[in-house]
Amino acid sequence: MTGRVLALSGGVGGAKLCAGLAAVLPPEELVIAVNTGDDFEHLGLVICPDLDSVVYALADLADPVRGWGRRDETWTFMAALRGLGGPDWFALGDADLAMHVERTRQLRAGAGLGAVTAAICRQLGIGATVLPMSDDPVPTRVQTAEGWLDFQDYFVRRRCEPAIRALRFEAVERARPHPGLLAALRDPALRAIVICPSNPFVSVDPILALPGVRAAIAAASAPVIAVTPIVRGAAVKGPAAKMLRELGRAVSCQSVAEHYAGLADVFVYDAADEIAPTVPGVRMVAAQTLMHGAAERTALARAVLAAAR
Amino acid sequence: MTGRVLALSGGVGGAKLCAGLAAVLPPEELVIAVNTGDDFEHLGLVICPDLDSVVYALADLADPVRGWGRRDETWTFMAALRGLGGPDWFALGDADLAMHVERTRQLRAGAGLGAVTAAICRQLGIGATVLPMSDDPVPTRVQTAEGWLDFQDYFVRRRCEPAIRALRFEAVERARPHPGLLAALRDPALRAIVICPSNPFVSVDPILALPGVRAAIAAASAPVIAVTPIVRGAAVKGPAAKMLRELGRAVSCQSVAEHYAGLADVFVYDAADEIAPTVPGVRMVAAQTLMHGAAERTALARAVLAAAR
Repeated sequence: MTGRVLALSGGVGGAKLCAGLAAVLPPEELVIAVNTGDDFEHLGLVICPDLDSVVYALADLADPVRGWGRRDETWTFMAALRGLGGPDWFALGDADLAMHVERTRQLRAGAGLGAVTAAICRQLGIGATVLPMSDDPVPTRVQTAEGWLDFQDYFVRRRCEPAIRALRFEAVERARPHPGLLAALRDPALRAIVICPSNPFVSVDPILALPGVRAAIAAASAPVIAVTPIVRGAAVKGPAAKMLRELGRAVSCQSVAEHYAGLADVFVYDAADEIAPTVPGVRMVAAQTLMHGAAERTALARAVLAAAR
Repeated sequence: MTGRVLALSGGVGGAKLCAGLAAVLPPEELVIAVNTGDDFEHLGLVICPDLDSVVYALADLADPVRGWGRRDETWTFMAALRGLGGPDWFALGDADLAMHVERTRQLRAGAGLGAVTAAICRQLGIGATVLPMSDDPVPTRVQTAEGWLDFQDYFVRRRCEPAIRALRFEAVERARPHPGLLAALRDPALRAIVICPSNPFVSVDPILALPGVRAAIAAASAPVIAVTPIVRGAAVKGPAAKMLRELGRAVSCQSVAEHYAGLADVFVYDAADEIAPTVPGVRMVAAQTLMHGAAERTALARAVLAAAR
């Protein structure tokens, strides 16, 4: 079976599966469209947390312990910034900072985020195609009891503490999906659309909210395989479980499967879950979805691709 | 003897003498006006090499071996930037980077360079007043056989290799000296104006070229004491000797003394020079001008203050 695979990814969990897919697919057969709703400007730098998680994972630069940022990282900048009384609520490693500085430099010189990402991937020897979901900013805003918060304000500064009421993807109706994302969806040889095990609300929904993306997914002949980020009633990482609860849904892979109803053809839940989710018309596949290392990433990638057949 | 001391300083050598002055004077009696002709924007960051050298020296953060930047520095950012194919010709340590990022952030938020410098000095516990010579940019440009070059392009990227023909301080005629510099010069209690052992052409001349500064120095009742950056026919650091040669002057403290003729009342040359310079109307004082450590910085500061009496 050949043809391209399109992965829709958020940060950490999605990045791990993307690394698995990159390990089992020829580079020209993998296109990854990454959420940019988390992107923000901080200290004058354009920071794209999910893009960077995917890029670092594919370049084998990701920190395996922290789950974000680069391995072999140093923190001299942050300590010095603190000494100068600068805003230190968002942790920026010294090596990671180079990504933000260089990306910002290229953006200010007039390049689009997609072109900058491509240049950085080339430089890091990444063969797969990594795309931002859009070159246009679509900042996620979070409605809480305290009012609307910018995403990183909610996510990092407030550590996801305020209860969430709603989400908004600012200016999404005017944003254009990255042309490479639409081209992949329209490719007759597309063999699978993979929704990575990322937060459905803040990592995957922004991609799906872009004008034309849901319709293009529906029109694509390739099967859509969604992978659960919820295992045994808990989020593997991040606030997905808390968000499900606050939005009045059960914290279960069943809720995630329902979230993707009408979109996914196959739903991959974790084999550790005793009860398989059920959604009419969706084939349920059990797999080991926790990825502690390269072997597990590769195994899940193979399971996902097998489910697409 | 009380009253304020005003130091006009460039980078490394000037910064050392400033640290010496700060060690022997009460903080409220020391005002340092620093050259900003070397300032430039790089990677989207506003970099002020001379200001930083003075600030690091006064905060006891300067690297004693390299002569520039911060001690206990790490270089993770530069290595990562190189890995991303970014411009790596200007070395930025991880801790040093915090200064550029935080300064740029405050400038973009609307503060003037003087206010930003004051905030940073406060944060680092520096009691003396450190001022940029101006809040307005006055970028030094270097005329060479290859045409006009930006200063850091000449100084760092080209390692001062192209022979220098002339210097220009761009837009200096429209720049306003920092109000604190003019106030210090007009202070009736000013007891000394110290021209630090910095490069006369690219560190001190930009300050003197600001509208009104030469006149205010001439009008001040305080004596002007200039300290040689040339010892036994060589520059202690940097391109001062090469510049003297290329501008057709002898590489000697005599040339520097002549450069400050009409301005300096006292010229401090190095005791290691066998022949004292002579300039009509200028008192010559021999001192140990090389500053390898805190004791030598303090001793030179005391010698300079004694010469002002």
